[in-house]
Amino acid sequence: MNNKANFHLSCPIPISRYPRVTMAHGGGGRLSHQLIAEMFQPLFANEFSKAEHDGALLPTTSKNIAFTTDSHVIRPLFFPGGDIGSLAVYGTVNDLAMCGAKPLYLSLSLIIEEGLPMETLWRIAQSIKTAAETAGVRIVTGDTKVVNRATGDELFINTAGIGAIDHALAIQPSSIQSGDQIILNGDLGRHGIAVLAHREGLAFESEIESDCAPLNGIVQALLQARIPIHCLRDLTRGGLVSALVEIATTSGKRIELNEPAIPVREDIRGACEILGFDPLFVANEGRFIAFVPPDSAAAAIETMRAHPLGAGAVQIGQVTEGEARVLARNIFGGSRILDMFSGEQLPRIC
Amino acid sequence: MNNKANFHLSCPIPISRYPRVTMAHGGGGRLSHQLIAEMFQPLFANEFSKAEHDGALLPTTSKNIAFTTDSHVIRPLFFPGGDIGSLAVYGTVNDLAMCGAKPLYLSLSLIIEEGLPMETLWRIAQSIKTAAETAGVRIVTGDTKVVNRATGDELFINTAGIGAIDHALAIQPSSIQSGDQIILNGDLGRHGIAVLAHREGLAFESEIESDCAPLNGIVQALLQARIPIHCLRDLTRGGLVSALVEIATTSGKRIELNEPAIPVREDIRGACEILGFDPLFVANEGRFIAFVPPDSAAAAIETMRAHPLGAGAVQIGQVTEGEARVLARNIFGGSRILDMFSGEQLPRIC
Repeated sequence: MNNKANFHLSCPIPISRYPRVTMAHGGGGRLSHQLIAEMFQPLFANEFSKAEHDGALLPTTSKNIAFTTDSHVIRPLFFPGGDIGSLAVYGTVNDLAMCGAKPLYLSLSLIIEEGLPMETLWRIAQSIKTAAETAGVRIVTGDTKVVNRATGDELFINTAGIGAIDHALAIQPSSIQSGDQIILNGDLGRHGIAVLAHREGLAFESEIESDCAPLNGIVQALLQARIPIHCLRDLTRGGLVSALVEIATTSGKRIELNEPAIPVREDIRGACEILGFDPLFVANEGRFIAFVPPDSAAAAIETMRAHPLGAGAVQIGQVTEGEARVLARNIFGGSRILDMFSGEQLPRIC
Repeated sequence: MNNKANFHLSCPIPISRYPRVTMAHGGGGRLSHQLIAEMFQPLFANEFSKAEHDGALLPTTSKNIAFTTDSHVIRPLFFPGGDIGSLAVYGTVNDLAMCGAKPLYLSLSLIIEEGLPMETLWRIAQSIKTAAETAGVRIVTGDTKVVNRATGDELFINTAGIGAIDHALAIQPSSIQSGDQIILNGDLGRHGIAVLAHREGLAFESEIESDCAPLNGIVQALLQARIPIHCLRDLTRGGLVSALVEIATTSGKRIELNEPAIPVREDIRGACEILGFDPLFVANEGRFIAFVPPDSAAAAIETMRAHPLGAGAVQIGQVTEGEARVLARNIFGGSRILDMFSGEQLPRIC
């Protein structure tokens, strides 16, 4: 986060003249070009973004790449622990990391609602820059659209990303084997509860911050430690349970969770009780699970714990023989079947 | 367009039960997964989209790739000659083609407004499939979000794209030389006028259709004919003039247009006069210019004319010595300076 000072830079678009984004800022004329040339290009300039093309030319040195996309529609735009800009960068970085790829390049596409304060856009643009630097990725191409008032919601951000795959592992659900151990990098539920509490004006004893963070560093650490990872998955929309049900269905394997081992902070557990949520279904933005062979579990936990984003790493379950489903064992040894939730849980949290 | 028959397939989501998209279709639970598993995955299935990852793993055989992104916010969703789905595919395919790349892979990210008829989503999904097949690209990864009623506008679509660069040309503004000839592949102004006329309910003698089309085929034809292309640019938002002003500024070159040579259909010219637009500023979605050395101009025109999307190819100007700006010469030999428009011209046409 070596460019924190940028947050004090003043907006390059004169606020007195253009206090808010207008339709003309997305129309392809002079104001569009000014917004891009004066706000975005200097902020994100790098050797790949300079050709004044509608695309970036990139060298590829890997035989395989990963490609992913995410649109971010979170509201509010700013929340404890992050904002839509950092979320958009880390969300796509994390999707690439979960493919076992090293994230390299991001595209950035903004859909701005007419009337968005120019200062807000500038704050978010700087947050994107800081997040990209923190994650070690470059914004290489972009697009800006403006939609009429009341046909958008301040700002939506799409980031697509390209990462390099420089190892021979097949990190995917079909690589999962019976006996694999499931390792989680930390406590669950912070992102969803932080955003909801902030949005609804709920006050808890302590302010709950999102866990929003880039996971590429900790995944690289696992790869460098030569952990033979079978599968990785971040625990976003739908939380831990949705991720596991999807993986059980895809891989055709049975997954058993040791529910008491799953870390949830007391304040999050309390907030979930008040709000009627199960923390196992709540979205995270800095949490993931790794499926590893049993003889690599201890090394995986040790490697994760040595990384700031894995200090709370624990083994929470394993893959067993049997019907493809997810079971949670409680402290009494009893078990329940976990399934995806029906209907709507926490809307607009990413 | 060998899958036209798909347009008669019935929607895989039971319309009687889910006549409209709900918030739960974007929440990460059962309905989200059903929408993706039953509508999108079967439609776009290919060898790269099957891993059940949040990303696609792709082989790279080129030393260089191009990467681009575009969000599409056009309204209405359907217009004469296309819809937001085909536009989203061709828009990104064309951006890649303009980089001199062969488009290979697209990502597809939908931001759906709660309440969108499920049948509308299905029609657009099929249009995306047909357009991708027509352009020869594969949809390899995706994302779906749903936003609350009145915080979106039916549907926004982001497509990012990756293309392979398999030649040694540096196709970019800085490669432009004095003496370069500017070749245009056909008549101007159809897309912007078609969308505007349809949106505003204006009736002209003949229905005006958008020129929306994939330009990768005609660009590949130029490359295969070994035309030493210096620069390519499609003429979207802001039309021919915005593209030329941008290129003149970036390359530091002076561009002279022979205005009478620029093809504009009579009905488009008439509509522009009634509506108060200059066709040189109106958006196209299937038109581009190529900058080529003078001794390659005839071959470039011949190659373009042999392609269905270049039947009307003509030379419309050249690069000259002098101050970096765009001049248009009229039939009397006089000239005027062309600049980007200020303010807003045609909103939401892409």
